[in-house]
Amino acid sequence: MIKNKDPIKKIKIDGLDFKIFNSDIKKNKTDLLLVTFPKFSSISGVFTKSKTPSAAVIDCIKKVNLKNRSIRCLVVNSGNANAFTGIKGTKTVNKITKFLSDLCNCNENEVFSSSTGVIGEELNPSKIISCIKNKKPVFVNSIQEAAKSIMTTDTFPKYAISKVKYKNFEVNVIGIAKGSGMIAPNMGTMLAYIFTDLNVNSKVLQKILTNENDKTFNSITVDSDTSTSDTCLLISTNQSKNKKINNFHDKYLDNFKKCISNIMLDLAKQIVIDGEGAKKIIEIRVENAKSISSAKNIAFSIANSPLVKTAIAGEDANWGRIVMAIGKSYEPIDQNKIKIKFGKYLVTKNGMRYSKYLEKNLTEYLKNKEISISIDIGMGKHKWTVYTCDLTEQYIRINADYRS
Amino acid sequence: MIKNKDPIKKIKIDGLDFKIFNSDIKKNKTDLLLVTFPKFSSISGVFTKSKTPSAAVIDCIKKVNLKNRSIRCLVVNSGNANAFTGIKGTKTVNKITKFLSDLCNCNENEVFSSSTGVIGEELNPSKIISCIKNKKPVFVNSIQEAAKSIMTTDTFPKYAISKVKYKNFEVNVIGIAKGSGMIAPNMGTMLAYIFTDLNVNSKVLQKILTNENDKTFNSITVDSDTSTSDTCLLISTNQSKNKKINNFHDKYLDNFKKCISNIMLDLAKQIVIDGEGAKKIIEIRVENAKSISSAKNIAFSIANSPLVKTAIAGEDANWGRIVMAIGKSYEPIDQNKIKIKFGKYLVTKNGMRYSKYLEKNLTEYLKNKEISISIDIGMGKHKWTVYTCDLTEQYIRINADYRS
Repeated sequence: MIKNKDPIKKIKIDGLDFKIFNSDIKKNKTDLLLVTFPKFSSISGVFTKSKTPSAAVIDCIKKVNLKNRSIRCLVVNSGNANAFTGIKGTKTVNKITKFLSDLCNCNENEVFSSSTGVIGEELNPSKIISCIKNKKPVFVNSIQEAAKSIMTTDTFPKYAISKVKYKNFEVNVIGIAKGSGMIAPNMGTMLAYIFTDLNVNSKVLQKILTNENDKTFNSITVDSDTSTSDTCLLISTNQSKNKKINNFHDKYLDNFKKCISNIMLDLAKQIVIDGEGAKKIIEIRVENAKSISSAKNIAFSIANSPLVKTAIAGEDANWGRIVMAIGKSYEPIDQNKIKIKFGKYLVTKNGMRYSKYLEKNLTEYLKNKEISISIDIGMGKHKWTVYTCDLTEQYIRINADYRS
Repeated sequence: MIKNKDPIKKIKIDGLDFKIFNSDIKKNKTDLLLVTFPKFSSISGVFTKSKTPSAAVIDCIKKVNLKNRSIRCLVVNSGNANAFTGIKGTKTVNKITKFLSDLCNCNENEVFSSSTGVIGEELNPSKIISCIKNKKPVFVNSIQEAAKSIMTTDTFPKYAISKVKYKNFEVNVIGIAKGSGMIAPNMGTMLAYIFTDLNVNSKVLQKILTNENDKTFNSITVDSDTSTSDTCLLISTNQSKNKKINNFHDKYLDNFKKCISNIMLDLAKQIVIDGEGAKKIIEIRVENAKSISSAKNIAFSIANSPLVKTAIAGEDANWGRIVMAIGKSYEPIDQNKIKIKFGKYLVTKNGMRYSKYLEKNLTEYLKNKEISISIDIGMGKHKWTVYTCDLTEQYIRINADYRS
């Protein structure tokens, strides 16, 4: 992961402009990010599949599905999710986007917004509007500060940068994300924004984003809880001098796709590392399952098991809990064929503990910060990898009293 | 819940004989329960649906499905689950049941066993066999001590007793159970044994057990983790003088069915109250859902949400997390129709916070030990109730180092 002190100096996306404010939703902290883009910037997005999505998510989904979609302005506030706020919440989004479309001299459909924080509290649009109108930004064009301004229970700002070639053109990519709790699969987890200057239409961007989302943001879990506000946008200012890309299968796009995938996985892993109270990142690789969905279900059954996660927190070689979690996935398995490995250590064979298993090896291995568990199901050829973190007392402390 | 000091004195099931041993699987604690029954005692059972069931569960399932099933002997050990022990585990079960069938002078198919404790450790059958052969029982015919001997992380023994009329005959029912962690739905949760003297065949017993299981043991969750060893047996010594009941629809059976249901719910709630680290029991009632499965999924989505459970542990009126958990169930809902109530306090209406909502009422209500949350979905007529507990730091402490 890239952690330069001021990454914006190493990379620049023409036309991209960050402004970071303190709007007083949170006390004495930046809590508002305003990003503006040149005309005809391309936009794609994936969102929470929650049946109680926030007002901003509902608005974004509508706009990202327009035939002639584009973006001029993105506004993100932290400290209040504007979720489950009924008709009032919708009006709030409309007021903010109307104000910004006037300010940027663009269509309301070109203004996107996100909100993250407590669910069920009314968000006062005046706070945001008057802040942008009257206050000076606290920071300008800092990726780090942009990432900081959207944090809630996060303990560090999450961002990643990359350069990649498209034909002879150098393309730049910047991603920021937030997320620490209420993180679970089946969506564009939490808030993530990825910016590039590659000249590419929104449709192609959308396909790239949707494809890569499944193996990155949709393959992490902190606590199995899915947020109402999850949003991931992939945006291009289109300022690179390449001829506009209209074909997803353009063979020169492979580098860019790989680059987006890496950025997304990097951000996704940062979210897991910063999982509330987490001390360890756990990679769970399921191999040779009967189908992809079977591999995925088994991996998530392990990754979401509180008993597995607490054992790893306690550095306790209680691998039987992995067996339990495989069993409760109800996927097709033959317990005699399962091979479980912690790092390089084989733990089970023939439906029981491996004859050469030494507990002290596992105990030693579990002291690492990065734990890799691989499960060979021995029933087919399909695999899936999921990332999660351990479950510590700190998670409870954070969440038993999040709002105060 | 009935908590007499020595309940066996208040109730007696003819032909039922408990012996409680210390077999040295656990140090200085009773860890072995041997129950014997008269000839032709009726048996029914429900078991974990885990795909990694323990050797004892596999053996029980086979025997309970026999056409001419009956039980003479039940043996339960705690401290070792004999799960994921491969062919060795199967041999262990066979050795124990062979020994007991000789001892009780019965068929091996009439001997049932359960094991609970750590997964993946070999269970030495000699320990159990030589204990029963050579040691004196520590207690005899005490319900409380029987319940204690099967405990693992439980903090109190779980049992319930009842008397009920069938026609003019007084029928007795005794239930014992264990369970505290690795508790989740879709099975006969953990270990539970219910004994009666009603003269009834195994087929009818099985139907009663299967029917009542869904709304009792299958409607509790502590941590969403499903054990490899879950077993619930309903056994009759058939010593009541009533004519053998062969018809599930016998109209005089209603009292008995209700009584079994009450005993099972009572035991299920005791398991939740004793959920690892739990300080509160939470009842989640979902009403007016589109289907029963929808009501059930929404209820479990809430009951298994770590964010909901930690908020309740912290007595924090963060009801937005209920909204999140409803949303992540992906069930058919209209967020504007959802009404959430904590006890008598209405919290939401019209897709937002209820206008007369007062946070101090909720904060006060959350100080209770028993919390009732009801959710009116407003989409149909179906309902389901689920029981769970809060999630505290103590859960992590217990499970980060269970084995040591």
